Amino acid sequence: MGVQALKKAVFGQVDPSARPGSISFTNKIVIGLILAAVFSAILETEPTIAAGNEEAFRQLEIAFGLLFLVEYLARLWVADMNPAYAGSRWPRLKFLFSLSAIIDLLSILPALFAIAGGATLALRFVRFFRILRLAKLGRFSNAWRDVGDAIRSRKEELFLAFSMAGFVLIVASTLMYLAENDAQPDKFGSIPRTMWWAIVTMTTVGYGDVYPITPVGKFLSAMVSVAAIGLIALPTGILAAAMSDVMQRRRRPKGD
Amino acid sequence: MGVQALKKAVFGQVDPSARPGSISFTNKIVIGLILAAVFSAILETEPTIAAGNEEAFRQLEIAFGLLFLVEYLARLWVADMNPAYAGSRWPRLKFLFSLSAIIDLLSILPALFAIAGGATLALRFVRFFRILRLAKLGRFSNAWRDVGDAIRSRKEELFLAFSMAGFVLIVASTLMYLAENDAQPDKFGSIPRTMWWAIVTMTTVGYGDVYPITPVGKFLSAMVSVAAIGLIALPTGILAAAMSDVMQRRRRPKGD
Amino acid sequence: MGVQALKKAVFGQVDPSARPGSISFTNKIVIGLILAAVFSAILETEPTIAAGNEEAFRQLEIAFGLLFLVEYLARLWVADMNPAYAGSRWPRLKFLFSLSAIIDLLSILPALFAIAGGATLALRFVRFFRILRLAKLGRFSNAWRDVGDAIRSRKEELFLAFSMAGFVLIVASTLMYLAENDAQPDKFGSIPRTMWWAIVTMTTVGYGDVYPITPVGKFLSAMVSVAAIGLIALPTGILAAAMSDVMQRRRRPKGD
Amino acid sequence: MGVQALKKAVFGQVDPSARPGSISFTNKIVIGLILAAVFSAILETEPTIAAGNEEAFRQLEIAFGLLFLVEYLARLWVADMNPAYAGSRWPRLKFLFSLSAIIDLLSILPALFAIAGGATLALRFVRFFRILRLAKLGRFSNAWRDVGDAIRSRKEELFLAFSMAGFVLIVASTLMYLAENDAQPDKFGSIPRTMWWAIVTMTTVGYGDVYPITPVGKFLSAMVSVAAIGLIALPTGILAAAMSDVMQRRRRPKGD
Repeated sequence: MGVQALKKAVFGQVDPSARPGSISFTNKIVIGLILAAVFSAILETEPTIAAGNEEAFRQLEIAFGLLFLVEYLARLWVADMNPAYAGSRWPRLKFLFSLSAIIDLLSILPALFAIAGGATLALRFVRFFRILRLAKLGRFSNAWRDVGDAIRSRKEELFLAFSMAGFVLIVASTLMYLAENDAQPDKFGSIPRTMWWAIVTMTTVGYGDVYPITPVGKFLSAMVSVAAIGLIALPTGILAAAMSDVMQRRRRPKGD
Repeated sequence: MGVQALKKAVFGQVDPSARPGSISFTNKIVIGLILAAVFSAILETEPTIAAGNEEAFRQLEIAFGLLFLVEYLARLWVADMNPAYAGSRWPRLKFLFSLSAIIDLLSILPALFAIAGGATLALRFVRFFRILRLAKLGRFSNAWRDVGDAIRSRKEELFLAFSMAGFVLIVASTLMYLAENDAQPDKFGSIPRTMWWAIVTMTTVGYGDVYPITPVGKFLSAMVSVAAIGLIALPTGILAAAMSDVMQRRRRPKGD
Repeated sequence: MGVQALKKAVFGQVDPSARPGSISFTNKIVIGLILAAVFSAILETEPTIAAGNEEAFRQLEIAFGLLFLVEYLARLWVADMNPAYAGSRWPRLKFLFSLSAIIDLLSILPALFAIAGGATLALRFVRFFRILRLAKLGRFSNAWRDVGDAIRSRKEELFLAFSMAGFVLIVASTLMYLAENDAQPDKFGSIPRTMWWAIVTMTTVGYGDVYPITPVGKFLSAMVSVAAIGLIALPTGILAAAMSDVMQRRRRPKGD
Repeated sequence: MGVQALKKAVFGQVDPSARPGSISFTNKIVIGLILAAVFSAILETEPTIAAGNEEAFRQLEIAFGLLFLVEYLARLWVADMNPAYAGSRWPRLKFLFSLSAIIDLLSILPALFAIAGGATLALRFVRFFRILRLAKLGRFSNAWRDVGDAIRSRKEELFLAFSMAGFVLIVASTLMYLAENDAQPDKFGSIPRTMWWAIVTMTTVGYGDVYPITPVGKFLSAMVSVAAIGLIALPTGILAAAMSDVMQRRRRPKGD
């Protein structure tokens, strides 16, 4: 009886589906932990901050790992109270193979490396996994689902817009390669290399590491820059409209 | 009686709430003074203009300070006629602690430094305070309130858009740091440093001080540039729609 | 009688108001002449084209001047048939002081310099006047009026949007000047000079001639770049909506 | 009879008009072949990939050519079953001169050069033709028609928007040429050369190879950058709205 009451309390605190539309106190702490763990992983890469504090960062990492482990075990314990798994024969097993449980398990892994000592070879993957703890936040938000809905509702338009942009990208890269290859063989030495120029120009980033120097190349570049205005207007407008539809639908309840 | 009539006239001239929708002659002068004071503070930092005219700029600054002091005292004197403070027991005290009165008081401070002689240490703060006199203009406009309304009316959408942009920013910086760290350790030496590249790329500013040179880095940069189009389309579209709603609501009177 | 018929025919050919919605054959020639004159003025500045052809360009310029003179005299002759001036006591005098007649007169001037021989001193002004012949095209289009209508219909919103952009521009330039002045005194040497950085960043042009190098400066630059997205979304959205309104109103006739 | 059944089956597989709204298995293979041929042509220009594999690329090219030849002959054979040509007296001749047949024929040509051995002179044209095989995809999509419809439905607005952008481009280039010619004669040496700066600035690409260094030039550049926001907002907004109309019309069937 006491255990059952505790389990119910834990479920209410740990599982977002228990309280739709609001976030429990425990989950606020979990969100804070995730952000702190990512923030610490980001800071650790900066030599001027990490130098001399390696041991402190290692212990912090182990602490985060332990806390995420506790949360994982708690979620596993109360998994059979979650309506999404309750109908199943082995609700805990079904939970174990859910996307959010796998993400939670992967979030614990980097701490093992911290305990084992920094294996230099695996360092890059460990760093990337620490940042990917951000994905744990996905459980508390329907942002990705909303964006997915918006993209799916206009998939033909977006496919068309990206096809046209891809077509212009390839043709522009080919023409520019033919125009600038002789003058700048290092920067426009092949069509794949010229695509770097095309992307940098069409997105209007314009770093300035590659740009045409021949008159024909400059004319082509001008045409591509102007065409890119329209090519970028299309997906931008489509996405903004789709997103606004999704948002409005969510604001109005179904009975409306 | 004569004093009361004068006070009423001063109130009508000094307080924008006395004449909703129009700006009194005195306030037009105050607006001109604010712009002139800011313009003079900007020009004073330019050596080719300030050299040899230090004394003139100092005296101009004292003049602006005195005029703002007169305005402040006048507003304090008539504060008890303002309906916003009239109900209070100590209307002048309530006025003294209002945001607009504090801004007005802070606007007078830089002149004291000009009188006392330029303390080199405080120079930076003084310069910044002189520019912040622009905030005095806030009293005459509802621009900030409109923008605040627009942002508040779509706060979930904007939070979602900024969350996604932040997520892409962090993941892109991590991947780029892993890809370019060996080739350009000075520019991509840590995740926080790589974030400078990510911001410059995602906003399409593209100064050209940092850009990837490895094939993997260039591919990542191309993906991020393209994703940024969508990520920037979202807040842009949301804000434009919200602002247009706020504007339309204001154009139509309430009885409409 | 024969003269009167000729005058009527000339009026029909020369004055766009005689045939609303269509452009006469003579006017098509005039439009072609304007474009040819501007194109020739642009090409003449290119040394690799102009070298050795100075005399040819000079004679071409005189020819354009003569043709524009003929058009001007023809318009002056038939000015009393134009309903806009017909009611006046001195219709030709009223025409002489109309904007479009003054532009036409100014378009003839550069040819005088070509006849007199190139006075080096006035060369710059002459070049600019030759390009300004483009303004003659204004007579045949209502583009400027449409744009003017669109801007006027949202002048409060646009004023608000530009005020906020101006406020952010000034505050950002001040903060950046304080942050980068010591590290890069040549590029961030005063607030007016730092404004060049602010404009280049906020419009996302990002030439790369000035950019922050201190951590504080980079953080400020990141904030300004992100804020600029919203600041540019506002006037962009307002203008696009206003222009679309103006266009739709013109498509539908008044009786609709 | 057997031949007729085969012909009908081939027609159903080869001609997209036989199955509106879906793509046959054969056509999926053809689309895959087109993409593979373009991808191989792009990779072949990269020396680090092509070096030592010239013979393999040549044989791949011949294989693509043969497969496209087979497809071309199959389409020619069944051309008289296509309702678009069936009414004609010589349906196959009419097919031969259709745009899609000419594109298909041109797609076979580059393989002939691969068989004949690489004539260095024609190499550039051959490379461009290989990339243009992308145009074969046009047969399976109505993207271009949709975009054409969208542009046509707003041609006056777009003409107006481009006229204004062109006007600003020419006037800005002239003023900038007059302002910067003395300081940077190599970069702002003539109006046509200055137009490169104008395009790079107005599209906000901002490579950084040309930028003003005089105060007057910087002021002009700031004005042009700000004006460009509006100039680019117009065609962007117009195109996005037109495209959204075209898309909505297609989603709703005619009887709706």
